[in-house]
Amino acid sequence: MTSTANRTDLVSAVEDRLREVGKTIRRSMLDAMPDGEPSAWLYAPMREYPSRPGKALRPALCLSAGRAFGASSDDMLGIAVAIELLHNAFLVHDDVADGSEMRRGRPTLAATHGLAAALNAGDGIAVVAGQVLRRATRRLDRDLADLVWSEFDTMALRTLEGQATEVGWQIDNVADLGPQDYLELIMHKTCWYTTIHPLRVGAIVGSGGVIALGPLVRFGFHFGAAFQIRDDLLNLVGNERVYGKEILGDLYEGKRTLPLMHLLENARGTDIATVRDYLGRTRAERSPELVAGIRALMDEYGSITFAGEYAEGILLVAEDYFEEAFADAQSGPDLDFLRALVPYVWARWR
Amino acid sequence: MTSTANRTDLVSAVEDRLREVGKTIRRSMLDAMPDGEPSAWLYAPMREYPSRPGKALRPALCLSAGRAFGASSDDMLGIAVAIELLHNAFLVHDDVADGSEMRRGRPTLAATHGLAAALNAGDGIAVVAGQVLRRATRRLDRDLADLVWSEFDTMALRTLEGQATEVGWQIDNVADLGPQDYLELIMHKTCWYTTIHPLRVGAIVGSGGVIALGPLVRFGFHFGAAFQIRDDLLNLVGNERVYGKEILGDLYEGKRTLPLMHLLENARGTDIATVRDYLGRTRAERSPELVAGIRALMDEYGSITFAGEYAEGILLVAEDYFEEAFADAQSGPDLDFLRALVPYVWARWR
Repeated sequence: MTSTANRTDLVSAVEDRLREVGKTIRRSMLDAMPDGEPSAWLYAPMREYPSRPGKALRPALCLSAGRAFGASSDDMLGIAVAIELLHNAFLVHDDVADGSEMRRGRPTLAATHGLAAALNAGDGIAVVAGQVLRRATRRLDRDLADLVWSEFDTMALRTLEGQATEVGWQIDNVADLGPQDYLELIMHKTCWYTTIHPLRVGAIVGSGGVIALGPLVRFGFHFGAAFQIRDDLLNLVGNERVYGKEILGDLYEGKRTLPLMHLLENARGTDIATVRDYLGRTRAERSPELVAGIRALMDEYGSITFAGEYAEGILLVAEDYFEEAFADAQSGPDLDFLRALVPYVWARWR
Repeated sequence: MTSTANRTDLVSAVEDRLREVGKTIRRSMLDAMPDGEPSAWLYAPMREYPSRPGKALRPALCLSAGRAFGASSDDMLGIAVAIELLHNAFLVHDDVADGSEMRRGRPTLAATHGLAAALNAGDGIAVVAGQVLRRATRRLDRDLADLVWSEFDTMALRTLEGQATEVGWQIDNVADLGPQDYLELIMHKTCWYTTIHPLRVGAIVGSGGVIALGPLVRFGFHFGAAFQIRDDLLNLVGNERVYGKEILGDLYEGKRTLPLMHLLENARGTDIATVRDYLGRTRAERSPELVAGIRALMDEYGSITFAGEYAEGILLVAEDYFEEAFADAQSGPDLDFLRALVPYVWARWR
């Protein structure tokens, strides 16, 4: 692993790049939004999430992978914007489905405008994402454009499969789950659209569709899984102002995160019944006291330590896959950025 | 207008055609659905609405307009299937937004599977619609394919604008509305995707993008508006088994339909306060007794008669526009079907 001093440099370089990409993408997302009526009930709500600063990891991955494999910035920008717009559409609908209150440090669309307006806004952002992607793929050869579109369709279905499974586990109160189930879930729910898809699309456009995608999928999956576990941990131990969502929100929802699955597998004696009873309740029946109790059991059984160590193990594997995945890429700032992502995620719980 | 005997023949010919198109489109929609996992939580719910018999008006309009302007059935089928899939995606999300209980004679997806699963299913159907449309437009020249895609984007945004306005009127309890506002609403909410879009896309593909679309829009708007008013009336006077949705559901939701707007404008004395108080309530606060009271006022003030007569007037205008819109179309069974649509809608309240 990289030394501590180098790591600090790498992390701040990654954060600078993400901030810079975020600014460009945010401006492009808002430029792509129609300016029509009804503004108050549709187009203004559609602009809310895209105008709140997010991590911009997905477009940054896509831009850098594309350029590292030979594409120009102009080839990639619209595609990266479409990825981030779709991400925003997913967030809007996710917040409706989860009944979440906060997103990126401010109230969710559903909390401010109601369920129906949030639903329409999410659908609207997805339509605009399609418009942007259509303009962006116009400059590509038609077969290559089709390949890019088919990647987007696949990604959208994988993401919905993951979200549907997560909801299904909660509704049917599925308790018989281990880390392997969790990894399969986030492979669909998170990794596909957060890391694998942006990297694949970048490599396809950059290489003209000839690069082997298997190693990229392996790198993207391991890196993305570690990224998601980090997010799950921040929800349990983070600071609400920095994190931007409700702390312990996942626990209130009964989300099957890795620490929760560890607790389910390891709880003993009366704690088993406590955890199972908790999961059997609706969100409204989960009091702050009950949530605090489950959170304390996670410390007692080492569930949070376990998840952190698990993610570190996955990151080591991701680092190994990196060299294979980018063997044919051009050296330069884009490849440097991609290589620095593993220490960047690592640094957040060190 | 056509004589009564002829009208009976026309109506049954239209219904035969709709039934036949419906069967073909339903089969194609289900064929296009992925067969993966999670079946119980995503792919099975996605199949539910598409497998319930619907009116199939939209794909029938698209198929017939396309062929009447010179396209082959193979050119049009995939596009018509995509239109009907998007319609199903809209229905799924609409039912979530409206909290509806019944759709096509059976429980809504949200009622059976919960809000989150319905939300995911609607998103999933929209993705499959895109896949189908992409395959269908592959056989077209690239510029023509782009034109078709841009029609779909426009249609989706117009529809969302209409839905958002309707929800906004309910949430903000906007009461100062007349028939003109209603027509503008359904122009967006219904006509664009029910009649104008299928006709325009058919004409674009059939004519290779050269036909003038203005007259088609005028015909589609008037025909579609009458069709929507008929639907609003059936919700007030229809039979639940035949209609497939809850009778009086629109009243429970406080939907600004034409009869309701007429009542708002015409109520006098204490009835004004009764109607305004009713609209100010939430759905849960609208008891069956209150709903029955508003329904009785509609009879008292002639609101239902007014809406029926209004629709008949619009249909007469639609009939005039028909000849202009289809002046360059080929005669044959497709043109006959399109011409018979006006008497078909007319016949439903005669």
